[in-house]
Amino acid sequence: MRLTVGALSEAELLERIFPRLPVPDAVLLGPGDDAAILAAPDGRTVISIDTLVEDHDFRLLRPNGHRTTGYDVGWKCAAQNLSDINAMGGRATSLVVSLTLPPITPVEWVESLADGLTAAIRELGAPGCGVVGGDLGAGAQLVVTAAVTGTLDGREPVLRSGAKAGHTVAVTGMPGRAAAGLALLEDGRPLGGFGPAGEELVAAQLRPRPPLAAGPAAAVAGASAMLDISDGLLRDAGRIAAASGVGLDLDPSALRQYAVPLEGTAALLGVDAMDWVLGGGEDHGLLATFPQDVLLPRGFTAVGSVVPGQPLVTLASQAAALRGWDHFAH
Amino acid sequence: MRLTVGALSEAELLERIFPRLPVPDAVLLGPGDDAAILAAPDGRTVISIDTLVEDHDFRLLRPNGHRTTGYDVGWKCAAQNLSDINAMGGRATSLVVSLTLPPITPVEWVESLADGLTAAIRELGAPGCGVVGGDLGAGAQLVVTAAVTGTLDGREPVLRSGAKAGHTVAVTGMPGRAAAGLALLEDGRPLGGFGPAGEELVAAQLRPRPPLAAGPAAAVAGASAMLDISDGLLRDAGRIAAASGVGLDLDPSALRQYAVPLEGTAALLGVDAMDWVLGGGEDHGLLATFPQDVLLPRGFTAVGSVVPGQPLVTLASQAAALRGWDHFAH
Repeated sequence: MRLTVGALSEAELLERIFPRLPVPDAVLLGPGDDAAILAAPDGRTVISIDTLVEDHDFRLLRPNGHRTTGYDVGWKCAAQNLSDINAMGGRATSLVVSLTLPPITPVEWVESLADGLTAAIRELGAPGCGVVGGDLGAGAQLVVTAAVTGTLDGREPVLRSGAKAGHTVAVTGMPGRAAAGLALLEDGRPLGGFGPAGEELVAAQLRPRPPLAAGPAAAVAGASAMLDISDGLLRDAGRIAAASGVGLDLDPSALRQYAVPLEGTAALLGVDAMDWVLGGGEDHGLLATFPQDVLLPRGFTAVGSVVPGQPLVTLASQAAALRGWDHFAH
Repeated sequence: MRLTVGALSEAELLERIFPRLPVPDAVLLGPGDDAAILAAPDGRTVISIDTLVEDHDFRLLRPNGHRTTGYDVGWKCAAQNLSDINAMGGRATSLVVSLTLPPITPVEWVESLADGLTAAIRELGAPGCGVVGGDLGAGAQLVVTAAVTGTLDGREPVLRSGAKAGHTVAVTGMPGRAAAGLALLEDGRPLGGFGPAGEELVAAQLRPRPPLAAGPAAAVAGASAMLDISDGLLRDAGRIAAASGVGLDLDPSALRQYAVPLEGTAALLGVDAMDWVLGGGEDHGLLATFPQDVLLPRGFTAVGSVVPGQPLVTLASQAAALRGWDHFAH
C-alpha cells in the first residue's frame, strides 16, 4: 500500500520535501522560523503569486488517459511564477509554496512535485532561486500556490504601460503550442496517434518553458512594454494596448509561421491552428514592444507594430473580431 | 437571487475587490502588472505564506449554527500572516492574496472577505501595509492564501534559536482564549447559553488579535528568541527549545492566571481550562525569551525560564507528560 500524506505529521512530510528543494542564494534566513529573510541589494523586491487548482488548472486524469504527475504540477507552478518575474525584466530569487493536499495524496506524488519545482528552477535557468518557506495543510482538492520574489538588479522594471506608436511588437517562443497540447489532452483519442509532435505539444502544455534569459535581456535592450503570454496573444496584447493607451497591430503573415507547424495536428482535431496561436495561453513566452531603432534581443521575433488611436488589437489593421476571433477580443 | 462569483469575469470581480483593499505605503508598483515592486530600504525583505482552507481551518456553518463570514476569514488571513512578521520583530509591508472560490460563492462574501482583510490591517496596527497583488481562480472549496512581506527597519531579526539558560520566558496576551472559542463553536449548544464571555472567546478564535507593536518592541528590548503561538504554548515552546538547544521550564502558577477566567466555560463543556492554555493554538500571541537583566516590554508577562539540558519543555521542572499533557508534548 502506498504511503499517503494523511499518515504523516506535517513535520514528517516537510522532512521529505525540503531536502529535494534547491537552497536559494540570496537568502539571509531560510526555512524553519516564522518567516524567511531575503536579500534585496538594490532596495527593491518584485513579488507575485499564482495558484494551480486540481480539475481547473490541471487534471490528474485526462480524457485520453494521460495522468498528470506531481512533477508536472511542480514544474508548472515554478514556471508560471518565474515567468511573472521574467515579464518585469527581473530575475527570480525565491519561492514560498503553500500545498493543500487531500489526505489520500500519495507521499511520492508530493515528493515528485518537489522534484518538478526543483527541475524547473534549474532547467529554465533561475540559478540562485530556491524555496525559502511554505505551508502545508489538508483540503478536499489539490491546490498549489507559490509566491515568487525577484530582483531587478538595479534596472528599471518593464511595465505594460510604456508602448508608444511606432514601436515594434515582438514575441518569444512559439505561441499556440501549449494550447495545441491542451487540445490533445482534452481529446478522447490516445496520444500515440498524434506521433512525436503530439508528445512535444503536450509537454509545452504540462511543462511550459518561459525564456528566463529573455526578460532581463529585453529590459537591457530598452523594451518599452512587456508581459508574459498566459491568456493568449490577443488578450495579452489587449492588456498592453489598454495599459499604454495605444493600438497593437499584429501581422498575420508573421504569425502564420507559428500556425504552420501546428496545422497537421489541428486538421486531425478539426480546428484552425491560428486559433491556438492567437487565443491559446499558458506558453509563458513574452510579448514586448521595442522602440523602432532597437535591435531585437535574441529570441524575439517581430510580429507587428504599435499604432496610434484606440487601445485595441488589430490584425493587418482589421478588428480581430472581423477576422473571426471576437471570442478572444474582450 | 444573490450574485455569485461564477457570474462575473475575473476582471469584474477584481474591480469589486480592489477598491476595498488598503493601498500600501512602501510600494513602488502596485497591482495590475505581472508583478508588484516593493521598497526594501534596509536591503532585506521578510517573507512568509499561510493558507486557510474551508472545512479544515474554518467552517462556513458550525455545529451550533454559527456562520463564519467572509469578513472573519479575511481578518484571520491577514492576522495570521501579519503575526508571522511580528514574530520576527518586523513590520508588515504588503500582502499578495490568492483566492480559490467555488463558482457558487456569493460576491458579497468575497467583498466581505476584502473588508475583513482591510479591517485587520487597520485595527491590528499595520499602517502602511496593503495588498499589492493577487490571483483569483475557481475550485471545489474555498482556499485563501496570502504571502506577507515585511521589513526589519534595519534591526536584526529575532529567531527561535537564541534562547540561553537563565533567560526569562514571557508571553503576550491570554493564551487559551482562541482554543476556548473553538470549543464553543464546535459544541452543539447555541452560543447564547454561554453569555457575553462566550462571544468574546469566539471572537478570539475567529478574529485573533496578534499584538503587532509587541514584536518590534521585543526586538528593540533585546529578546533572544521569539515565535508566535499558533499551535499551542507547549508545542511552540518546544520549537524554541529545539532550535536553541535548551530547556524551557514553564511556571504553572504563572499560567494559572490564564486558566482562571476560562474555568466557568470549561466547566460547562466538561474540560480542563489548563488544556486550552497549554495546548490551544491560534491566539497568535508571542512567546519570547529575554536576558534576565532586560525589563520586559509592555504586554509581556513572565511565565518561566530557560534552563540548561535537554531541549524539552517542562512544567515546574516536571515533564509535561507527567502532568497529563503528553498529547501535546511531541
